[in-house]
Amino acid sequence: MSISCSQLKETLPNLITEVRGSLSASFKIVSPADNTTSSSIVFIHQEKYLETALKSSASILVTSSSLANQIGETSKTILISPNVYLAMAKTLEVFFPEYSTKKGYIHPTAIVSSAAQVSSEAHIGPYCVIGDNVQVESGACLDSHVTVDANSKIGTNTHIFPNVYIGPRTQIGSSCEIKANTVVGGEGFGFAHDEKGQHHRIPQKGRVVIENNVSIGSMCAIDRATLENGETRIGEGTKIDNHIQIAHNVKIGKHCVFAGGTVIAGSTTIGNYCVVGGHSSIAGHITICDKVHLGGRSGVTGHIDKPGAYTGLPLQPLRDHLKTEAYLKQLPQFTKKVQKLLKKLGLEETL
Amino acid sequence: MSISCSQLKETLPNLITEVRGSLSASFKIVSPADNTTSSSIVFIHQEKYLETALKSSASILVTSSSLANQIGETSKTILISPNVYLAMAKTLEVFFPEYSTKKGYIHPTAIVSSAAQVSSEAHIGPYCVIGDNVQVESGACLDSHVTVDANSKIGTNTHIFPNVYIGPRTQIGSSCEIKANTVVGGEGFGFAHDEKGQHHRIPQKGRVVIENNVSIGSMCAIDRATLENGETRIGEGTKIDNHIQIAHNVKIGKHCVFAGGTVIAGSTTIGNYCVVGGHSSIAGHITICDKVHLGGRSGVTGHIDKPGAYTGLPLQPLRDHLKTEAYLKQLPQFTKKVQKLLKKLGLEETL
Amino acid sequence: MSISCSQLKETLPNLITEVRGSLSASFKIVSPADNTTSSSIVFIHQEKYLETALKSSASILVTSSSLANQIGETSKTILISPNVYLAMAKTLEVFFPEYSTKKGYIHPTAIVSSAAQVSSEAHIGPYCVIGDNVQVESGACLDSHVTVDANSKIGTNTHIFPNVYIGPRTQIGSSCEIKANTVVGGEGFGFAHDEKGQHHRIPQKGRVVIENNVSIGSMCAIDRATLENGETRIGEGTKIDNHIQIAHNVKIGKHCVFAGGTVIAGSTTIGNYCVVGGHSSIAGHITICDKVHLGGRSGVTGHIDKPGAYTGLPLQPLRDHLKTEAYLKQLPQFTKKVQKLLKKLGLEETL
Repeated sequence: MSISCSQLKETLPNLITEVRGSLSASFKIVSPADNTTSSSIVFIHQEKYLETALKSSASILVTSSSLANQIGETSKTILISPNVYLAMAKTLEVFFPEYSTKKGYIHPTAIVSSAAQVSSEAHIGPYCVIGDNVQVESGACLDSHVTVDANSKIGTNTHIFPNVYIGPRTQIGSSCEIKANTVVGGEGFGFAHDEKGQHHRIPQKGRVVIENNVSIGSMCAIDRATLENGETRIGEGTKIDNHIQIAHNVKIGKHCVFAGGTVIAGSTTIGNYCVVGGHSSIAGHITICDKVHLGGRSGVTGHIDKPGAYTGLPLQPLRDHLKTEAYLKQLPQFTKKVQKLLKKLGLEETL
Repeated sequence: MSISCSQLKETLPNLITEVRGSLSASFKIVSPADNTTSSSIVFIHQEKYLETALKSSASILVTSSSLANQIGETSKTILISPNVYLAMAKTLEVFFPEYSTKKGYIHPTAIVSSAAQVSSEAHIGPYCVIGDNVQVESGACLDSHVTVDANSKIGTNTHIFPNVYIGPRTQIGSSCEIKANTVVGGEGFGFAHDEKGQHHRIPQKGRVVIENNVSIGSMCAIDRATLENGETRIGEGTKIDNHIQIAHNVKIGKHCVFAGGTVIAGSTTIGNYCVVGGHSSIAGHITICDKVHLGGRSGVTGHIDKPGAYTGLPLQPLRDHLKTEAYLKQLPQFTKKVQKLLKKLGLEETL
Repeated sequence: MSISCSQLKETLPNLITEVRGSLSASFKIVSPADNTTSSSIVFIHQEKYLETALKSSASILVTSSSLANQIGETSKTILISPNVYLAMAKTLEVFFPEYSTKKGYIHPTAIVSSAAQVSSEAHIGPYCVIGDNVQVESGACLDSHVTVDANSKIGTNTHIFPNVYIGPRTQIGSSCEIKANTVVGGEGFGFAHDEKGQHHRIPQKGRVVIENNVSIGSMCAIDRATLENGETRIGEGTKIDNHIQIAHNVKIGKHCVFAGGTVIAGSTTIGNYCVVGGHSSIAGHITICDKVHLGGRSGVTGHIDKPGAYTGLPLQPLRDHLKTEAYLKQLPQFTKKVQKLLKKLGLEETL
């Protein structure tokens, strides 16, 4: 399929605001600057890639107005965007959809409870198992080997990848993605302890609620809440990478981003617009306010009530942590220096 | 279903030891203190929730005798328990079972080897695949898409959730839970290295043994032992959260608790009644004695032969670690102070 | 099956270089030194196990020439190997294969696209789902519930364990292992952000390439690259343990080893012959040269351009890190000592 610049501009008027060069120039593939053909469109949002892109065989470049102003004479068509990266996202989404929609098809091997309500516009793939009173709404797509337990709901246009297990009573909103091999709504890790120090399972009667437009990676485990009215909740627009553990009764706000490998312990609440770096650890029963940015491998053991950037274990504001880290690396030689001082002062013994 | 206080007391005589108020008061739901109806029973084991519970619409409160003595006049029925949390666990388990037993049913899509021995009282769900010489005992329940390799055993009343893979020769005891998408008995990570620094797989001929009453979370990987007589073993009553890696030849004792995201390297031995905080790392070939409590994100690199609380990387006794952490945060300003001292003493250059 | 020493020597002439004692001695099982029968062969590559092995009931010992020279008179047959551990690996592989080959069989429940090309010498297990234009080469074995998306390739003699999901366009070489419940070729975690701080998915059009002889553990997630020509690549002979996250556009060299629980963020490049300890964190967009050894729980936040051993967060050369760790543990008492000094000098207030 060949897409012309005028077609692109018409489709994304707010993201392609100006065209320098031929509107009829066309592309068939979105490419990185260092691997192009003459059918490539290249999106450049950082100056360091600009030269490579200009020398490349690509015939169309999308970039910011400030970078575009650095470009001299060129045979390439230059498109100006106020948000180059978002323009790339939307170009790919609109013109190169990854997943073909197979609406209105239930694979003959899918086992769907007669008490389930599956929209005639939903897709249920091979070897899925759909329990009693499950609702699958229009445009929802369940790939192969997906199990959905009783009383759960999968919202419109939500895509569930292979081997996902959705536990009982889970409510998933519209336009979500739950990637392969993830578990949403499994039993929380709750035990009562007797006088011998032995552990007794607390059946987990609550549920998980995933709001609209949430993305959850592969290998995540999101446990349901303990009590019947309780919820583990992921807010609208939040994006969760692979290998993330979200324990029972956790509440996560809207439009957050969690990078891979993070563990969040039970009953913790996280605000809106937070960003959590990979491999972080967040203790249970704490509250983190809106707009907190945690660096990679942060360890959060107490409440955070002020927006800003934090990192480390012990957690510190980012600037303080960077200082601590720098001084820590110098600690051996610093200690030795002081020991020499004590010796020089003849005070080594007396302290 | 409505359950009266007298019914509850009769069912759990050791856990409900006294009733203040009407024995005929009844409940239909176990609720948290802040989200009740008039059909709610609320279990309060911490003073901070007591006031909320007393003001709530719940008609029945279960609490400790010391907290009960703080309660003034009330129309609610107050039940006294020596272990409030355990009383809640047992109330939920007995009166609100999560999983209905579907004994004696093999789904027609399950593929069961003719050389397997499946109890007539076991349940095998849709799309399960059961290998040669597998034993599935009475009351065991395998949900959908469970694969059990040859020569394994699933004990009585053990529940295996969807998409679990049980590798060859795995022995699982009675009343265990293996949660969704977990792998028990996969190949260990064992390689021999040649003179070029290349790696050659060592086929893993051992097995995994899971004793009775063990719970294993979602997304865990428990590898089988290397040699034919070897075992990776999880002791009776031990509870393991999600995302836990247990490498080949590890031995874990009885009645331990492991929080999510912990990695245990090969051939390590852990005693009984240990508690391991989330996201901890435990090196291979070490021994940890009974009754060790590790804080979240501990890093254990050597043997621990004294019970007690430890945390940090480097690992220290909890108290020492807290001091180290506190001083670490002050390190930048402390270093600067000493540098000023050196300057003042005119010794800056000479050291 | 009974295997004689002469058979073993003939089969592995470079790994069994000398026999002391009876060539007709035979074994039926490879055992650890502390758990033998008279049919056992024991491989001893460390001095500490030698005495146990000599006292054991095993009739055959394999060891290095230097350890063999420590052995006095014995009725056991002693085999000498230049690489004892590799000799064990090959003995197990050749004489005790874990997996029986079931070539040329497609299970009747497997759903194979008519547009797929499956070798007549491949094995496709129950409930597999194979997409359009997928190639499965000779000797490849897919266990149960494996989903392979369109345009992927599974090379000769590669073994895919149960519940693995292979995303679209994934290229897997020969003689690889992909262990149970892993995801290879899932969507990368890529989002563009708008002016409100909300996140928009970037469809991931690239692919994953796994070269020959790669092993990937259970619970791994290896994301495909962002753009159509882009690749996430794992080099030949590299071995990856369980629970490892490899983000989009990562390139890993040949003959590396990654221990469990490591997270590698997007667009990072790692050289050949690297060894990465468990639970490490490697930031995105960095380059690590060949022959870097990272200790357990390393945190890599910048380029590494010199081979060698590193560890810690902040990352330091191994020796420096060990010093830093030692001084860190002494920090509280060191700080107190200096405070006493300041007091003694009467300078406490003036600094």
